[in-house]
Amino acid sequence: MDTRTRTRLIDVAAGREPADLLIRNARVVDVFGGAILKTPVSIAGGYFAGLHEVEAKKTIDAQGRYMVPGLMDGHVHIESSMLVPERFADAVVPRGTTTVIADPHEIANVGGREALDYMFRVSDGLALDVRFNLPSCVPATPFEDAGATLTVDDLAPYINHARVLGLAEMMNFPGVICKDPDVLGKLDLAFSRNKRVDGHAPGLGGRELDAYVTAGVHSDHECTSVEEVRERISRGMFVHLRQGSAVRNLAALLPGVTLAGLRRCLFCTDDAHPETLVGEGHMDRHLCLAVAGGLDPVLAIIMATLNVAECYGLNKGAIAPGREADFVLMQDLKEFKAQQVYVRGKLVAERGRMLHATPLRPSEALIRSVRLAPLPGDAFDLRLASGRARVIGVQPGSLLTRDLERDVQVTAEGVFDPSRNPGLNLLAVIERHHATGKIGLGLVEGYGLKDGAVASTVAHDSHNIVIAGDDTAAMRLAVETLREQGGGVVICRGGTVAGNLPLPVGGLMSTASAAEVNAILTDMTRFAHAELGIPANVDPFMALSFLSLPVIPALKLTARGLFDVQRFGFAPVDVQ
Amino acid sequence: MDTRTRTRLIDVAAGREPADLLIRNARVVDVFGGAILKTPVSIAGGYFAGLHEVEAKKTIDAQGRYMVPGLMDGHVHIESSMLVPERFADAVVPRGTTTVIADPHEIANVGGREALDYMFRVSDGLALDVRFNLPSCVPATPFEDAGATLTVDDLAPYINHARVLGLAEMMNFPGVICKDPDVLGKLDLAFSRNKRVDGHAPGLGGRELDAYVTAGVHSDHECTSVEEVRERISRGMFVHLRQGSAVRNLAALLPGVTLAGLRRCLFCTDDAHPETLVGEGHMDRHLCLAVAGGLDPVLAIIMATLNVAECYGLNKGAIAPGREADFVLMQDLKEFKAQQVYVRGKLVAERGRMLHATPLRPSEALIRSVRLAPLPGDAFDLRLASGRARVIGVQPGSLLTRDLERDVQVTAEGVFDPSRNPGLNLLAVIERHHATGKIGLGLVEGYGLKDGAVASTVAHDSHNIVIAGDDTAAMRLAVETLREQGGGVVICRGGTVAGNLPLPVGGLMSTASAAEVNAILTDMTRFAHAELGIPANVDPFMALSFLSLPVIPALKLTARGLFDVQRFGFAPVDVQ
Repeated sequence: MDTRTRTRLIDVAAGREPADLLIRNARVVDVFGGAILKTPVSIAGGYFAGLHEVEAKKTIDAQGRYMVPGLMDGHVHIESSMLVPERFADAVVPRGTTTVIADPHEIANVGGREALDYMFRVSDGLALDVRFNLPSCVPATPFEDAGATLTVDDLAPYINHARVLGLAEMMNFPGVICKDPDVLGKLDLAFSRNKRVDGHAPGLGGRELDAYVTAGVHSDHECTSVEEVRERISRGMFVHLRQGSAVRNLAALLPGVTLAGLRRCLFCTDDAHPETLVGEGHMDRHLCLAVAGGLDPVLAIIMATLNVAECYGLNKGAIAPGREADFVLMQDLKEFKAQQVYVRGKLVAERGRMLHATPLRPSEALIRSVRLAPLPGDAFDLRLASGRARVIGVQPGSLLTRDLERDVQVTAEGVFDPSRNPGLNLLAVIERHHATGKIGLGLVEGYGLKDGAVASTVAHDSHNIVIAGDDTAAMRLAVETLREQGGGVVICRGGTVAGNLPLPVGGLMSTASAAEVNAILTDMTRFAHAELGIPANVDPFMALSFLSLPVIPALKLTARGLFDVQRFGFAPVDVQ
Repeated sequence: MDTRTRTRLIDVAAGREPADLLIRNARVVDVFGGAILKTPVSIAGGYFAGLHEVEAKKTIDAQGRYMVPGLMDGHVHIESSMLVPERFADAVVPRGTTTVIADPHEIANVGGREALDYMFRVSDGLALDVRFNLPSCVPATPFEDAGATLTVDDLAPYINHARVLGLAEMMNFPGVICKDPDVLGKLDLAFSRNKRVDGHAPGLGGRELDAYVTAGVHSDHECTSVEEVRERISRGMFVHLRQGSAVRNLAALLPGVTLAGLRRCLFCTDDAHPETLVGEGHMDRHLCLAVAGGLDPVLAIIMATLNVAECYGLNKGAIAPGREADFVLMQDLKEFKAQQVYVRGKLVAERGRMLHATPLRPSEALIRSVRLAPLPGDAFDLRLASGRARVIGVQPGSLLTRDLERDVQVTAEGVFDPSRNPGLNLLAVIERHHATGKIGLGLVEGYGLKDGAVASTVAHDSHNIVIAGDDTAAMRLAVETLREQGGGVVICRGGTVAGNLPLPVGGLMSTASAAEVNAILTDMTRFAHAELGIPANVDPFMALSFLSLPVIPALKLTARGLFDVQRFGFAPVDVQ
């Protein structure tokens, strides 16, 4: 806050100068005291001035509605929404979310520093306050062909940015615990500027968790049990109760939230796909679920506001003098439906809609991100000498895969024959950032695709092209379509493109609205289930997008080949 | 924490390198979760490493005792203990206090920047971690003759000091609310370096409190009612529950501490006189009182540890990986008696005693602080033309005085005659910093002194010489004694010094131990009550020391004369 604003706020609070806005007749949620206050609230220069009746240029009668601090998402990859930040803002702000702590990990894997620059630029000055943690692990593993690498030297120029809070989820927890010099160098970069380091420690416990915490990592959003929540809180960590699209832990973790430990608990989505944003909501959904799970609504609001602010050192998250005036008017504290959303004291959304759609900013830097070598004629020829193969087994509703062995039918030339292996699909991951021509081939069971191909440039975490099919012509058409349009999700059948969601920005994000993206994806999903034979309990695109992530057991595929996560090394598909 | 320490901690926590110390068999108070954990605790390089069994160079069996984070005093004027910081540390550390947030306001009123330098120097590297807030209001009012003035330019060189947290209690709340440029300049100094500003807002409420908070003031230790606590917490302020020697609010405020608002509540002493430190204790006493008042002991500990650390941004206040390893072993959570005190992982006190008394550091800079003009022969001649005078009425157990009018007997020359006015004492305040010769004279009722004089260089906040008596010869002897020894508290009777506590450091602090200072003061207090006629319910020295503070109603005396606090101006003693 600059001095001029501060002195004006003093005048307004003291009643010497009119406020910009006065909210009367609201039930104000006091997140510090855990109470509901019946008090007027004055606002000036984008900040709350006071909780008293004063003169104001404009007055709003809240008609007894609840006045809640703007909701905050403690950790999110905006890219998972498949929306550019402008459109993501348009999707979540009308739901009452006014601040997100974003980790641009996905797009950074595609575009490196150029991608960071893009995310900072397009998120500047939105109605949604987008704060960043810098991606700490790009690429996510050394076994991948990401579009870029972010070293400590790459991150250094960004660490002092006004909207940078620190380092995002330090997924390389073995690197922390084993003191990998590159990892410690990144921690030092953050700590030397008094910045924070977010954690990512699935299943970590005992001495290793202590080592991770003592290294300075202050949070974790990967808890799956109450015991993990308790252990982390006792070490002073902030614990994000995650409820996203791919992973949903809130209900399971809620019993770990105690009154004494409340200040260490917050909410996050991590990822929120378009269908979740459109169909279920954003942080308002967390509040509903928490209250449905038995948490007091004011305590739930504290977790979604003040606690996020305290975790990340932000001057917001409360309706109190001197704090940034982001707030939501709601009819009740049960559905938490935002009726009006104010950012810095200005109405920006009403009845679920932005007053004005956010103008799109240029994204040239990140379009044409698909750089593919020409696809050779035998690109999808998986040679199997033995007639027996290791196969990735898709499990419905899980990111974990099974490590299977199957007898397979091959052509006279020893090549896997898609048409003669019912139940198995050919899977390919094609490097698409630097046109290296690397293609990893494998087999997948349980995806159930018949007579076509599904391909996507959303493929965690390196976001190469991942493609499954039983028809190499359709697979080829899908790849060429993605090359042509610079990425997206595509379904091909016979000689035609049967469904297509272009994601021109980095191959990850669309400039269309959440509703539009969701409509296309819903149609494509319906088609995949109804026409391609993919089982109803398998999300055709999410399942595909995680088949290339070589950190989740058991068997995955990268552009370098089949990866055995348990043995942490590459393995041949052919069983010798 | 430096990188080398951090990497060693990681090794120790992970079990790869032996810890310096392992505490086994303790009941560890988990201030984050509000629980008691039965877990070993490892320490290395002065920090907690982990909460698991690991190899260690040394192991201690806590035999089931409670392991509590080192206690913290959220706001204290060390000078009120009449002990130099080294001796103050020796008094409080064995009680379990390992950190204090000190405001060197008193000594700064005497010695200005030289006094700050002294306090920083002698408190460096003590077993007690002394953090500072810079005195924001020296002199306390423009109506006083303090020894020094601290402008924003005087404070600027100190603001970046590693142990400086911000500005201390901004007593000039009217200056904040009315945007006094000097006051706002001091706030800007703090905020521009991301430092904090402590408050001091007795009785402030409503719009004015909002204005004070919106100006950035983050705390208050002057609450006297639960309503004030609630109002401040709802604004996001930290509230110190004060229990000192002069003012004791803890019991009255405790009902204002709720589970939802707990994180905003902490404890402080503000001032702790020698008899309190020796006879009652320090922060251990707050814990006892809070528990006696019905607070859960673990929650009380949270207020005395984690909450102070969070209020001031310190990496301590919890037994958790990476935090500074200050802790106390206690037999129970009822008496909170410290059996062993560890600072940065090293045993420093046991069974109420320091292992080694702290070596005294040089205090030359602040001795000979009493600079008096020669006392004229008529120094104590209070001329009263009317025979009727305004008189300061002392009220037992209160810092407030009454504004009285009395008929008085005067000599033929019209001078107040101490011998013929039973019940009234002559009161004088003599400027003692710059030998200006200023003497303020007045009358006091209710102090009850007969046949002698009591004088002190402890006289809030300017710490001139304050002296009461009914015998001008004894008064003169008292003043000359203080001049000679460079300050202190003295009782004179007839022609002799009947009691004397020299306070050579700035006229405020002794280099003797708390026990020695307390023994002398106890004897002198007994003498004053038994031999001088001062009523048993009036503390002879504390009462005197507040008679010169021109901010507490109703009537006070300064070196410039009688001050009417309600009308906020000087007034004649003589009623015309």
